Amino acid sequence: MDATQMFIKENQQRFLDELFQILKIPSISADPAYTQDVLDMAELNAKFLKNAGLDNVEVCETEGYPVVYAEKIIDEKLPTVLIYGHYDVQPPDPLDKWDSGPFEPVIKKTEIHPEGAIFARGAADDKGQYFMHIKAVEAMIANNQLPCNVKFMIEGEEEVGSESLGGFVKKNKEKLKNDVILISDTSLVAKDIPSLCTGLRGLSYVEVSVKGADMDLHSGIYGGAAPNPINVLCQMIAKLHDENGKITIPGFYDNVIELSTNERAEMAKVPFDLDAYKNSIGIKNIHGEKGYSTNERNSIRPTLDVNGIWGGYTGEGAKTVIPSVAHAKISMRLVPDQNPEKITEMFMDYFKSLAPDSVEVSCKPHHGGLPYVLPSDGKGYEAAKKALSHTFGKETIPFRSGGSIPIVALFEQELGSKSVLMGFGLDSDVIHSPNENYGLFNFYKGIETIPYFFEYFAQD
Amino acid sequence: MDATQMFIKENQQRFLDELFQILKIPSISADPAYTQDVLDMAELNAKFLKNAGLDNVEVCETEGYPVVYAEKIIDEKLPTVLIYGHYDVQPPDPLDKWDSGPFEPVIKKTEIHPEGAIFARGAADDKGQYFMHIKAVEAMIANNQLPCNVKFMIEGEEEVGSESLGGFVKKNKEKLKNDVILISDTSLVAKDIPSLCTGLRGLSYVEVSVKGADMDLHSGIYGGAAPNPINVLCQMIAKLHDENGKITIPGFYDNVIELSTNERAEMAKVPFDLDAYKNSIGIKNIHGEKGYSTNERNSIRPTLDVNGIWGGYTGEGAKTVIPSVAHAKISMRLVPDQNPEKITEMFMDYFKSLAPDSVEVSCKPHHGGLPYVLPSDGKGYEAAKKALSHTFGKETIPFRSGGSIPIVALFEQELGSKSVLMGFGLDSDVIHSPNENYGLFNFYKGIETIPYFFEYFAQD
Repeated sequence: MDATQMFIKENQQRFLDELFQILKIPSISADPAYTQDVLDMAELNAKFLKNAGLDNVEVCETEGYPVVYAEKIIDEKLPTVLIYGHYDVQPPDPLDKWDSGPFEPVIKKTEIHPEGAIFARGAADDKGQYFMHIKAVEAMIANNQLPCNVKFMIEGEEEVGSESLGGFVKKNKEKLKNDVILISDTSLVAKDIPSLCTGLRGLSYVEVSVKGADMDLHSGIYGGAAPNPINVLCQMIAKLHDENGKITIPGFYDNVIELSTNERAEMAKVPFDLDAYKNSIGIKNIHGEKGYSTNERNSIRPTLDVNGIWGGYTGEGAKTVIPSVAHAKISMRLVPDQNPEKITEMFMDYFKSLAPDSVEVSCKPHHGGLPYVLPSDGKGYEAAKKALSHTFGKETIPFRSGGSIPIVALFEQELGSKSVLMGFGLDSDVIHSPNENYGLFNFYKGIETIPYFFEYFAQD
Repeated sequence: MDATQMFIKENQQRFLDELFQILKIPSISADPAYTQDVLDMAELNAKFLKNAGLDNVEVCETEGYPVVYAEKIIDEKLPTVLIYGHYDVQPPDPLDKWDSGPFEPVIKKTEIHPEGAIFARGAADDKGQYFMHIKAVEAMIANNQLPCNVKFMIEGEEEVGSESLGGFVKKNKEKLKNDVILISDTSLVAKDIPSLCTGLRGLSYVEVSVKGADMDLHSGIYGGAAPNPINVLCQMIAKLHDENGKITIPGFYDNVIELSTNERAEMAKVPFDLDAYKNSIGIKNIHGEKGYSTNERNSIRPTLDVNGIWGGYTGEGAKTVIPSVAHAKISMRLVPDQNPEKITEMFMDYFKSLAPDSVEVSCKPHHGGLPYVLPSDGKGYEAAKKALSHTFGKETIPFRSGGSIPIVALFEQELGSKSVLMGFGLDSDVIHSPNENYGLFNFYKGIETIPYFFEYFAQD
């Protein structure tokens, strides 16, 4: 292990340079204009996996973007760790809010990262995180210290719902066989607190349109007499929450598992500084469901957010138009045991019921994902806990995350194995937002910790 | 008069060709990218006014786009008609909803216009309408049948609030002195019903922004805990109307003049076919303030419409973002005696009061305009009524329009003269919308009618 850790220390600058190569590729899966970049990104991963000493490196075709696979089987009798990550990224817009180019990675010091952070789209989500695994495995292989088998499965459609991954996993069950799935695509609760994510929220996502007249209308001639789809859409959206911030969809909370008083007391131990929270994102006050703390609101409670809205005249100046159509993208974060498909149906039925008879409403569901609670025991969890405690020098704590990684439920169902969510990001990385960044401390701490995970997992 | 009318008949095709030259210029005052086109348009007007035989033609500089002035003073002792129009147009977007280019005028037959209609931005609002006056005056001058003095004042900022016109009028009171102002920038109640607009709604227009966090946030990490400016904006907009469609701004209706039972009974005589109305714009049902008819809702009642809304992710597919800011453009059509400045203040105060303490709200007022009721007697109104009755062969009826022409109130205040709104458009012209059009029947009927107005107005 000393040799591996020494190798990591000596190659720090090279690892960072290589990550920069990855970050420079705009592998935006949501936008067809970047198809070639996403494909190039898959090939670059294959190159790095080969250079790391892995075998059977393959860019596997799927219905959509390819899955990059690689393995190092040192002994069939030893356990196997499957590492999952994704090489696609969210669109970078709004571009004008970035202080440097989203695909021109730079190191800048921040309050949280005085030693520097890597600024680029995908720095934390998830390029900087899956790349830690390639480098950690490279270090173990180079020093003959890989203690068990390892497989990599890096996909290119996570940000658009991992639509082809299900089919790929089903077709390749034997190839993907493993004893634990290790994923770094989440955050620590704080930079100095070793922590493991044990719960993820699910997702339901629907695009809605409200149509009034067949054409845009003059608000002087028709104002007050014809339906205005924007006003109507706003009224419908407003009705989705009650005055206590509860979601009004009938049956929405039916399958929500309420935490026990004990569990809530455990959660309340996670440090939370309201002023620091407000300052970190520049909000005047927090805002959410009555009766729950901020840490509860963003992890164990389901939510409903409008992610985008548009309609009518949005240019400079004034135009007195009543548009024909108004649109919104609305998503719900779900918690155990809410079912995304059922919630999507419930949402669509309820949303349509809110419309007055003057308009037509259409709903288009996007991808969803199951909420998931991970075991906070078991061999994989224990190995991660020990590895983190070792490198941070502190006890590791479990926590629930508000985000969604829908494929975790899929993996358990298809491959029969549990996932361990050992992420090294921070909430302040502002993933999906302008100026996404990933601390150099976190990047190197991850590479340092991963070999210990392998060591502890291979033991006994 | 026969010679004038004969001249008009003989020159029909040339008049249309000339109008096409005007319609080809994208004189969009709202968009600085079209500055040169707006200026070119002013020059082309000057050319046509000169060719029509007018004197002292001048492209007058203002703080903004120029006002084109021209006159023909045949005898200082005779009365003077001042013709007002505007040569700027609304932006044509959404472009993809046009069946032909907005600045490539074509004649197409429609259900309402089996003899053909001119399709182009500005065809009805207002290029096709003010051009009728240039041609009618040309015909009278060419045949020595102009019975009184005439002045033209054609501005280039009507669609952006006529901001420089007030200053121009104040500086040029002597030059603009007149006995009546004649404007064709409104509609007939139906193609075969001679009708004169006797009331206009005023306008208050405010752009609002709701800000949550300083940056876009990941809805998994912050959803449910941080304010979502889109949800908040929708809730605030929804609160602007009550369940009866009444506007909730305190004091909003205080100065609204309610019509008497008799006046409402008079209004109810204007023909209205609900199914035809619904079909003409493709709405499932009408939608408006309880207790008022459609013709009342869009003319004698004040309204509040969101004209544009935007925020968050509006591209293809799904992005789980909570945006930093959401925006809307909100306008109110006002009726006598509501004051636009007061209403704008009331709106901004009330709108801000609707915000939760988690967000910051900012409001930016755009131009407004006073509501106005025109006299349905007096020499100008009588001349227009007689002229219309003559050319349509039917009695002329008065009506109130839902639109706003803020400068009418300004003219009365600064020049001391009344306006006559003798418009020849139709509501189905879809001004401000894609496929704006103006019937050939209406264009030629206007040119035919205007000389009779002059004749009747000069009499006695």
